[in-house]
Amino acid sequence: MRATLMYGAADVRVQDLPDPAVQEPTDAVVSVLRAVVCGSDLWPYGSMPPAEQGRPMGHEFLGIVEDLGSEVSGLKAGDLVVASFLWQDNTCNFCRKGLQTSCRHGGRYGFGGVGGGQAEAIRVPQAQGTLVKLPVAEDAALLPSLLTVSDVLATGHHCAVKAGIGPGTSVTVIGDGAVGLSAVLAARRLGAEQIVLIGSHKARTDLGQEFGATEVVSERGTGAAERVRELTGGDGTGTVLDCVGTTEVLQTAFGAVGDGGVISRAGVPQYSEGPIGMDMLMRNITLTGGVTPARAYMDELLPDILDGTIEPGRVFDRTVDLEEVPDGYRAMASRESLKVLIRP
Amino acid sequence: MRATLMYGAADVRVQDLPDPAVQEPTDAVVSVLRAVVCGSDLWPYGSMPPAEQGRPMGHEFLGIVEDLGSEVSGLKAGDLVVASFLWQDNTCNFCRKGLQTSCRHGGRYGFGGVGGGQAEAIRVPQAQGTLVKLPVAEDAALLPSLLTVSDVLATGHHCAVKAGIGPGTSVTVIGDGAVGLSAVLAARRLGAEQIVLIGSHKARTDLGQEFGATEVVSERGTGAAERVRELTGGDGTGTVLDCVGTTEVLQTAFGAVGDGGVISRAGVPQYSEGPIGMDMLMRNITLTGGVTPARAYMDELLPDILDGTIEPGRVFDRTVDLEEVPDGYRAMASRESLKVLIRP
Repeated sequence: MRATLMYGAADVRVQDLPDPAVQEPTDAVVSVLRAVVCGSDLWPYGSMPPAEQGRPMGHEFLGIVEDLGSEVSGLKAGDLVVASFLWQDNTCNFCRKGLQTSCRHGGRYGFGGVGGGQAEAIRVPQAQGTLVKLPVAEDAALLPSLLTVSDVLATGHHCAVKAGIGPGTSVTVIGDGAVGLSAVLAARRLGAEQIVLIGSHKARTDLGQEFGATEVVSERGTGAAERVRELTGGDGTGTVLDCVGTTEVLQTAFGAVGDGGVISRAGVPQYSEGPIGMDMLMRNITLTGGVTPARAYMDELLPDILDGTIEPGRVFDRTVDLEEVPDGYRAMASRESLKVLIRP
Repeated sequence: MRATLMYGAADVRVQDLPDPAVQEPTDAVVSVLRAVVCGSDLWPYGSMPPAEQGRPMGHEFLGIVEDLGSEVSGLKAGDLVVASFLWQDNTCNFCRKGLQTSCRHGGRYGFGGVGGGQAEAIRVPQAQGTLVKLPVAEDAALLPSLLTVSDVLATGHHCAVKAGIGPGTSVTVIGDGAVGLSAVLAARRLGAEQIVLIGSHKARTDLGQEFGATEVVSERGTGAAERVRELTGGDGTGTVLDCVGTTEVLQTAFGAVGDGGVISRAGVPQYSEGPIGMDMLMRNITLTGGVTPARAYMDELLPDILDGTIEPGRVFDRTVDLEEVPDGYRAMASRESLKVLIRP
């Protein structure tokens, strides 16, 4: 089969690999119908040291079940399924409390002998806890939106949930990438009243407004925080969703959040230390968020997609086939594309 | 009157100062019956550069109303009152949502022309929002416990509340100082099931066990976190209360908290940056806590003290008069005393 591997910064190749097969009784093999280039794929795309062994890429995908291990129940060959971007048994004590990202038998695609989703097919460990059957046809127009529960929508949603967003909340969303826009959509869906979107790319912030942003701030850094203060009578918003992950954005978050407020992070931190000293304590700021337990939210999010209440798939602005995936990376890294959908 | 001033590290003096008087119509003057040396007073006691002008000390006190400004209602001369360790109007939008520490008209004793509580008398700004009448006599045995709502108990309680402690919660409390022991008491009161107290001073951890700690860990640093893991089947506790504030303790907190858990801070951070990078995100750890809006909790905590349900005043293990305050500082700084009560 054809599959995507990364060999270093800006070095993504589509190559022939052996077809995946069931290895463990808890595995499934899925032929991929749709996959995604994730914003988090861009970090190694920008910085990965050259490697002799390519790293299989892709962790968001949906497809058709081809084969199943003997211990997988509830699924059958031919089922159309979506995967969460991490796999999990969905039965351990962490999974049961909705923290599938810490599953005792979980793991990441692309590591430890497991392939990636930017490929014609993939072996999925812990298939029963990971794959969720979709009640639509292979050619459904909803596939892009349904695929977002695998990661990007789930990430924005988790960020909003951890911030405690509910009816009447005011929130600043920092970042007009796909996660930021998904966070806007999630915040609106959860009832946020004032949603300030910080972003400078007009086509993206326009979509953000369609997703529910009530104001757009195009300044960056200190100016952005000052603008949020102006929009909120000086107090800042009750919550801030950091959908970027840089030190500069974290500083903006602390500047934009009101005393007693919550900063929730979805962006992968590009720093190891941050400003959590006296000022944070005196202002009673909470720092939360984290990697999303996507599986935990599927039962809640899928119905709203299936009935058209939300259309998170609008974040995809480019579709490529598998051979075009390297160009998809290039387009996302240069911000030419917001988010790239792959049709293998 | 006699009052306590700090002139530099380890340089605390009791001196004559002019008697305080009402200056603003929102002021009150209170003659102090009981005051406290706070753990937070020990930070300047350890590090304050020498100063020509002494800094008035003390922010936890109760006493008798001597005089009132024209705009203060609900209080009268002769009332026995307890103050919160910050003053506030208790009516602004921050106060109304329980964040009196960010009051629009609030402030700190000992700064900006306002004296301290380690004195015979003190002028209290925003008296109506700050002073709470106590339904006991001047000689009541409950005074030490009642005084703890001013700061130390309120601090431990806020730390536990921000951690989300409730029935069944598991918690690690780091620190066997007065705040740590108050946090144990507060966690127990809120229904915590497993309370692991990390501390090495046996008399203090013994009191911690009487306050509700279910286990005591005397190791420090990495060893302490490992011991908490052992006591919790490897998972760590769902919450950790940092009642110290050093970098080492913060590292212990991250080591002792379970995935998806909450670290709540009461201790004044002795650092400006901390480890909030990828590991925190991957484990979905929340960092919260902050300076306590003591006034917000008085209505909840005072009844439990008045009816004897809790005895937070047991943290006081030494009583001094005003002239002995410098020795009280010395005793607390050397850990000879847990917490010093002052009877001016």
